[in-house]
Amino acid sequence: MRLSRFFLPLIKENPSEAQIVSHRLMLRAGMVRQASAGIYSWLPLGHRVLRKVEQIVREEQDRAGAIEMLMPTIQSADLWRASGRYEDYGKEMLRIVDRHEREMLYGPTNEELVTEIFRNAVKSYKDLPLNLYHIQWKFRDEVRPRFGVMRGREFLMKDAYSFDVDAKGARAAYNRMFMAYLRTFARMGLKAIPMRADTGPIGGDLSHEFIILAETGESEVYCDAAWLETDMLKADIDFAADLQPAVEAILANYAATSEMHDAAKCPVPPERLHKARGIEVGHIFYFGTKYSKPMGANVVGPDGALVPVEMGSYGIGVSRLLGAIIEASHDDAGIVWPDAVAPFDVGLVNLRSGDAKCDEACEALYARLQAAGKDVLYADTAESAGAKFATMDLIGLPWQLVVGPRGVAAGKVELKRRKTGERVEMSADEALNRLTAA
Amino acid sequence: MRLSRFFLPLIKENPSEAQIVSHRLMLRAGMVRQASAGIYSWLPLGHRVLRKVEQIVREEQDRAGAIEMLMPTIQSADLWRASGRYEDYGKEMLRIVDRHEREMLYGPTNEELVTEIFRNAVKSYKDLPLNLYHIQWKFRDEVRPRFGVMRGREFLMKDAYSFDVDAKGARAAYNRMFMAYLRTFARMGLKAIPMRADTGPIGGDLSHEFIILAETGESEVYCDAAWLETDMLKADIDFAADLQPAVEAILANYAATSEMHDAAKCPVPPERLHKARGIEVGHIFYFGTKYSKPMGANVVGPDGALVPVEMGSYGIGVSRLLGAIIEASHDDAGIVWPDAVAPFDVGLVNLRSGDAKCDEACEALYARLQAAGKDVLYADTAESAGAKFATMDLIGLPWQLVVGPRGVAAGKVELKRRKTGERVEMSADEALNRLTAA
Repeated sequence: MRLSRFFLPLIKENPSEAQIVSHRLMLRAGMVRQASAGIYSWLPLGHRVLRKVEQIVREEQDRAGAIEMLMPTIQSADLWRASGRYEDYGKEMLRIVDRHEREMLYGPTNEELVTEIFRNAVKSYKDLPLNLYHIQWKFRDEVRPRFGVMRGREFLMKDAYSFDVDAKGARAAYNRMFMAYLRTFARMGLKAIPMRADTGPIGGDLSHEFIILAETGESEVYCDAAWLETDMLKADIDFAADLQPAVEAILANYAATSEMHDAAKCPVPPERLHKARGIEVGHIFYFGTKYSKPMGANVVGPDGALVPVEMGSYGIGVSRLLGAIIEASHDDAGIVWPDAVAPFDVGLVNLRSGDAKCDEACEALYARLQAAGKDVLYADTAESAGAKFATMDLIGLPWQLVVGPRGVAAGKVELKRRKTGERVEMSADEALNRLTAA
Repeated sequence: MRLSRFFLPLIKENPSEAQIVSHRLMLRAGMVRQASAGIYSWLPLGHRVLRKVEQIVREEQDRAGAIEMLMPTIQSADLWRASGRYEDYGKEMLRIVDRHEREMLYGPTNEELVTEIFRNAVKSYKDLPLNLYHIQWKFRDEVRPRFGVMRGREFLMKDAYSFDVDAKGARAAYNRMFMAYLRTFARMGLKAIPMRADTGPIGGDLSHEFIILAETGESEVYCDAAWLETDMLKADIDFAADLQPAVEAILANYAATSEMHDAAKCPVPPERLHKARGIEVGHIFYFGTKYSKPMGANVVGPDGALVPVEMGSYGIGVSRLLGAIIEASHDDAGIVWPDAVAPFDVGLVNLRSGDAKCDEACEALYARLQAAGKDVLYADTAESAGAKFATMDLIGLPWQLVVGPRGVAAGKVELKRRKTGERVEMSADEALNRLTAA
């Protein structure tokens, strides 16, 4: 993409409405603009990251055996009356009356709708296990939306729903999602710690939140210092195997949100107990028959008897993740994207656009990088070198490839790694080799 | 994907609520389920096609120079008051009041919001031309939703918005979208005829609908028989060139919706005038300063004077396209997907699942096809051969690769082309060559 043709409206000053760094940087870097309170438009740069994050979530759901579908945003109130949650949900639910005076709502989650779909389609344990997920916009009418996309009203969520004939199967489904979540967040360069959690309005008695440690986090959390030291979350996972031992091994390291933490019962000695703030990026629940019983979602079991299906649900805050990643990865100059979610792999900086030799060298590099499958943002504008560097630092592309008149004369380019700030001069071929090997 | 692990709830009987063939087949093939009136859940098979259609739309928008972003579904009523459309839109607009009694709405289209984003970001003609698009769910509260996804209330639309400093630039932007639409629909195996059209609530005085001829279409249309004979829509397009001559050459062939058709002025002799029914799948508008003027979206022109920006908008009904494609491509046995949008490229039919040799041969083919990048649905279930064939015909995969005990013994498989019904026996290697060359 040529910067001259891209839509990247940057903001020089820190916006006064933004209290946390990710919100500030997403506004300044032209990633989002607020449309109404807690509702954002994703500008092209932000949209690119959103799609990369979404794709990682999708790939890891698929790998764990979940099947993608897509439920609508608008649901019928009657469906929520059937589960008993219509009144429970309170003012966070955006309630709507259509032109025929039917009561509708903008879905904050999808347990009811997916249970209805399941109930009408599946009759036998032979069609289980089943895990259906979708990545869809949700709405929760927060009383005080804040922190940009971290606590917005309209947000993108991945929610998966597992169906099993018995508790043992449901636990296995829970374990697969548990491990899939570890992989998902690790691929984004995040350390997300699973913590025993409260189940809230979803229900059930087994639940974990996945929490990223960050100073601006809304939750207070306690964890064993082991979490900070090890990289236990990156292992390869065989989803066909029994994952219970692996899950237990991970959970042997203490971690809990403040609601679940009890200092008196904490097994971690004080000197190893780390108190921190965290951002919830995922939440998984096993709630058994909470929805299947009232909604009559039954299957015939192996013994011929009809039983309500055992369910769990598994959420990832896809749009919120962008804020969380920035909270965990930025510096004074701007965002530092992990490679896997960067909006472009490389920023190509032409220090003197309009100079025939610089332009020619840049065009050649631009073409070769694209041919190698790299996403490149080519700063081909008439701005100063300083302005181009500041833009590249602000938007946080992992690599900057810098081409200037002196370098071109000497057959050299400069390659800068955003994360470390390291700059190395080398030939164009060497730079291409480095970038395409990365 | 193994059929045994997929979620494909088929319906044997024709559902009584479905009046047109695409609606019947989408329900029977387990592509969608109605969640509420005019609101559908996309089951995994339907979701796969939706994503393929969306991706073709995206690629052709990108090729034509449009830039993807994403605006939210919920908008502020104030924004629509600024353009004067809040009252105009009538009951089709789903109006919402949030917990703070603010008036909101579920966006039926996005001219206002994108104009606001533009106004706050772009100040000079030097940043033009600009074309921003998004692919997002919309809601129109149809009084009588019907025909499944063809006339639903919640639907997926691609809408693009062009911004230019003058009418000449705006016409060039219009032409780029015009040609991009021809490419888009042609890639989906559709012949979509551009027709002079009424502008309705969007406004402006230049507009074309893109219409697919189908007996169940809602619009009456008139066109020169030349449209039925030629393949003028498949040319390669240089989007950097002046497209006006190419657009004019295409429009020289008469085509008009009944609202725009005037028998007295029609240039086509009666014997060449084709009267038919059609389905609108795209609609493009040039409306100049209709939104930029009231909303104050001005840019500095080359002469230093401030002028309201010239705009157009360009819609494609992404979810509706699935219905339109089925209307145009089906037979008595089910759907016949064009290759480019099929949910899977190949259906692998194991005629005797459980037979060691058949299973082994199928597993090998399954692995090799996947390694070659093909999407395969492997019918590995215990159903009868007849049931498997009926499923494959119903869901309309372009190819069926059939493996049975007799063939395995003779080193043969059977390859069936869904569209023609042609079946050819050949070696597994030959079949793989055919499928991976396709």
